[in-house]
Amino acid sequence: MTRPYNFSAGPAALPQEVLEQAAAEMLDWHGSGMSVMEMSHRGREFMSIRDQAETDLRELLAVPSHFHVLFMQGGGLAENAIVPLNLSRGGNVDFVVTGSWSAKSFKEARRYCNAHLAASNEADGHTGMPDRWQLNGNAAYVHVCTNETIHGVEFQELPDLKALGSDAPLVIDCSSHIASRPIDWSRVGLAFAGAQKNIGPAGLTLVFVREDLVGHALGVCPSAFDYKTVAENHSMYNTPPTYAIYMAGLVFQWLKRQGGVAGMEARSIEKAGLLYDYIDTSGYYVNKVDKRCRSRMNVPFFLPDDALNDSFLAGARDRGLLQLKGHKSVGGMRASIYNAMPLAGVQALVGYMREFAARHG
Amino acid sequence: MTRPYNFSAGPAALPQEVLEQAAAEMLDWHGSGMSVMEMSHRGREFMSIRDQAETDLRELLAVPSHFHVLFMQGGGLAENAIVPLNLSRGGNVDFVVTGSWSAKSFKEARRYCNAHLAASNEADGHTGMPDRWQLNGNAAYVHVCTNETIHGVEFQELPDLKALGSDAPLVIDCSSHIASRPIDWSRVGLAFAGAQKNIGPAGLTLVFVREDLVGHALGVCPSAFDYKTVAENHSMYNTPPTYAIYMAGLVFQWLKRQGGVAGMEARSIEKAGLLYDYIDTSGYYVNKVDKRCRSRMNVPFFLPDDALNDSFLAGARDRGLLQLKGHKSVGGMRASIYNAMPLAGVQALVGYMREFAARHG
Repeated sequence: MTRPYNFSAGPAALPQEVLEQAAAEMLDWHGSGMSVMEMSHRGREFMSIRDQAETDLRELLAVPSHFHVLFMQGGGLAENAIVPLNLSRGGNVDFVVTGSWSAKSFKEARRYCNAHLAASNEADGHTGMPDRWQLNGNAAYVHVCTNETIHGVEFQELPDLKALGSDAPLVIDCSSHIASRPIDWSRVGLAFAGAQKNIGPAGLTLVFVREDLVGHALGVCPSAFDYKTVAENHSMYNTPPTYAIYMAGLVFQWLKRQGGVAGMEARSIEKAGLLYDYIDTSGYYVNKVDKRCRSRMNVPFFLPDDALNDSFLAGARDRGLLQLKGHKSVGGMRASIYNAMPLAGVQALVGYMREFAARHG
Repeated sequence: MTRPYNFSAGPAALPQEVLEQAAAEMLDWHGSGMSVMEMSHRGREFMSIRDQAETDLRELLAVPSHFHVLFMQGGGLAENAIVPLNLSRGGNVDFVVTGSWSAKSFKEARRYCNAHLAASNEADGHTGMPDRWQLNGNAAYVHVCTNETIHGVEFQELPDLKALGSDAPLVIDCSSHIASRPIDWSRVGLAFAGAQKNIGPAGLTLVFVREDLVGHALGVCPSAFDYKTVAENHSMYNTPPTYAIYMAGLVFQWLKRQGGVAGMEARSIEKAGLLYDYIDTSGYYVNKVDKRCRSRMNVPFFLPDDALNDSFLAGARDRGLLQLKGHKSVGGMRASIYNAMPLAGVQALVGYMREFAARHG
């Protein structure tokens, strides 16, 4: 059976091998007689699953030992509150807005700290990278979203805050491109990612936090979201989303078999290159993002006439190309081509786009 | 294949039929070409899953239309903060402590309100129901845990606060016995339950809240945990734990096939009766909880000598009776016999207990 290609922005496609393994193990994990869903989170079976997942994740992303790896819940939108609850100390925080996600982070943080807009690309409709950053001298941290899922804007390199005159730790929301490129941890204080784009099922949030940043939560921070409590309890203070952690672990093992993050980055460059090159040379489709910060993961594009959108989507569905509709705030189309999307899926999409343009162009 | 009987307190056993259906649908849900894990939470496929789950849950528990049903994350320990963040208005709140869980709720709430200990059974080691409640005249709400998973203490009837002279809404943490007995909603303002005991996988929290109690969150309440935001967005403000909702939905359909909550209650009375009757007449095993408030779901029991515990557990494992070790704070054994535990599992346990007592008694 050939499965359709699923371009959903998240929850998103998972590797077929991973789904097949999960189905095969559903009633009996490794002779335990239990589904992973049925295991006590404190039993030795689940603890081995959790520990292996953390070991593989640390290896894949080369996470330094002075970072905690936390398995949390609530996704990126919950972290928009949880990060300032833990790191802001109620002081100044700098935000760089490059699209919807960082704009939401900025807005939510105002509940807990003096959130300062250090730079924004709102004037160009979130299509370029803001060039002038006005950083506070005494910010508790600087927040950026390193890949804007909706607007398709991606940092190709992490900002070097020291070179910009700031000693503050950098916080990155890397939900929608984690594990598609390496992370320069020397520039990062905290990274978070909802799992449902490039890692596994919705309901799991990964947090990587430098040890020295933990232990300063505001008094109103719920215990279950205090990084210190979570770290001290090895992400077992509250019952973790055990099945989502298991699925993420299967994805980590799949990533290792594919050549790890370096393998994924090479594949992503090829896939995104193919799609952007076609769009740019088509004379039909348009992507509005500055070429210097186009996302390798989320490719928004527009047809010459919105009246053709429904016809484009219906034809795509007929060819097994699913979930290509753009976000309502941007319109048009969006192809999310995460790690689990094979090159063949992008080739099939480009083939269909070519055919559609020839028929309607 | 006969699966072992899994007595885990949570995450806990799920019905075999449900796991089989999930395995069969893992790669292709209803011809969609997608796993449920891969679906956009805003797409029509997942929306139909979510809506059906809510409809079935409302029907099973006879939830009145003036209650919101919310699908949230973070489990009971997160709700220990989220409830006072939403309902306390920073004022007085009454807590009735009947075991570890309500004690934790009481402690966490102090961050947000004037938490008052209205009654406690700590003096008798959490084995009875405290008889004298000292309720505040002006409490924002009264919190009880209607089934204490660790101590095995269960309210056989919800307290009638009006009869006790309080006009405050009652908040119940019913995590570990939801869907095993009806809920008298006329006595309830809010009910919450982590899913991982009687509903589905860990990572999903169910919240039922009377409409008039929503919209009063403290300013420091994260948007993702503000009941108003969650309700207005039909639990889609942040990406919900989609797969856990799907699994819960399969459990709801299974519950309906078993005769619903009434069917479950009859089965629970039979299962718990069998186990307690044997314990009480064995002259070997002991359960210390007052018979008037013994839990039908969680049955802690003790051997005459703790030195025999390891031998008991090893023999149980050999007979396919899993996860019977008691919570470390109580010791001894604990059999959690939730909805998914068939009568045959309890019969097998009693058979083994009888055999062990005969050999060692």
